[in-house]
Amino acid sequence: MKYPNNLIKTYKKPLTYKNRGMDLENELNESNKYYREIDKALIYKKPTPIGVSNVIYTDKGKVIERGFFKEPSTLDYNGLYREKYIEYEAKVTKNKTSFPLANIHPHQIKHIENVLRHKGIVFLIIKINEIVYLLRGKDFINYINTHERKSIPYEFIKDVGYKIKYSYRPALDYLKIVDEIYFNGGNQ
Amino acid sequence: MKYPNNLIKTYKKPLTYKNRGMDLENELNESNKYYREIDKALIYKKPTPIGVSNVIYTDKGKVIERGFFKEPSTLDYNGLYREKYIEYEAKVTKNKTSFPLANIHPHQIKHIENVLRHKGIVFLIIKINEIVYLLRGKDFINYINTHERKSIPYEFIKDVGYKIKYSYRPALDYLKIVDEIYFNGGNQ
Repeated sequence: MKYPNNLIKTYKKPLTYKNRGMDLENELNESNKYYREIDKALIYKKPTPIGVSNVIYTDKGKVIERGFFKEPSTLDYNGLYREKYIEYEAKVTKNKTSFPLANIHPHQIKHIENVLRHKGIVFLIIKINEIVYLLRGKDFINYINTHERKSIPYEFIKDVGYKIKYSYRPALDYLKIVDEIYFNGGNQ
Repeated sequence: MKYPNNLIKTYKKPLTYKNRGMDLENELNESNKYYREIDKALIYKKPTPIGVSNVIYTDKGKVIERGFFKEPSTLDYNGLYREKYIEYEAKVTKNKTSFPLANIHPHQIKHIENVLRHKGIVFLIIKINEIVYLLRGKDFINYINTHERKSIPYEFIKDVGYKIKYSYRPALDYLKIVDEIYFNGGNQ
């Protein structure tokens, strides 16, 4: 998806938020595509849940004439890695000091707890201050269970999360971090 | 989704096909909801992949004014069961003698092979002649690799597949079959 240049540079427009979100999403989609190509992992972004209110039939097939975005109850990405179930959510914040918890729906928080209990690998990928962190589901749940805050301080993410470095291919080699924390004596 | 009565009864209309498909889908969604309630498994239907061509902003939020259905490259349902990755596709055919392979997209066939290679649990749930069968991914792939046909004969599904019985709750206790074939010395 391309936006005109002038919109990319107006950092306060809502479109830019979306665009920043799309950057991380594209980087992860590209990385997952690369992982599939080298047969390392099968991880896909789930389609955005959409409610279809009206469908018409055209010569090009069924076309949606009215639809709406629904709230997700699971996380955005899931799949299979090293014979394990893996699931995560990716979020970008332009906030510099904390990650607002409004980014994660209550159903999703419950779902993270469920996946942990069923021994799946689950985490968040958070881009904050232009740095990408992996925050384990376990650490995320621990934080929200022990703090009465509406956001997670950047300091916590920096201390407890794992930095994912940018590289050429894959753009974000997050499975390297997953290897370190989930497959080398680490726990979920 | 409710259809007017007269449409439900006209068995030759395309809408009815869809409706039959919806029955199995609803039965599986209900069963998966039940499995979550008793904390047995975390299995969800993925949202239908949709391409959004046009979005408008209304007082009710973002609304899709134009969208189209995309071809899926993975299977409809996936999740986590007994610490394993599980994925399947559910299909209904009104064909009495065979299951037309046009029901499964080439990308999905490739994906089934991928999941098998990565040691996930993968299968098809096929409703044919009003009976529901679980056909292991392995058996499905073996069949299409050794036969030059555009459909799988009912006899094969009956012989090689596993019948899933209807019950009260869950409506379709397919995890009982999964237990038998994937967790009791069976292989994928």
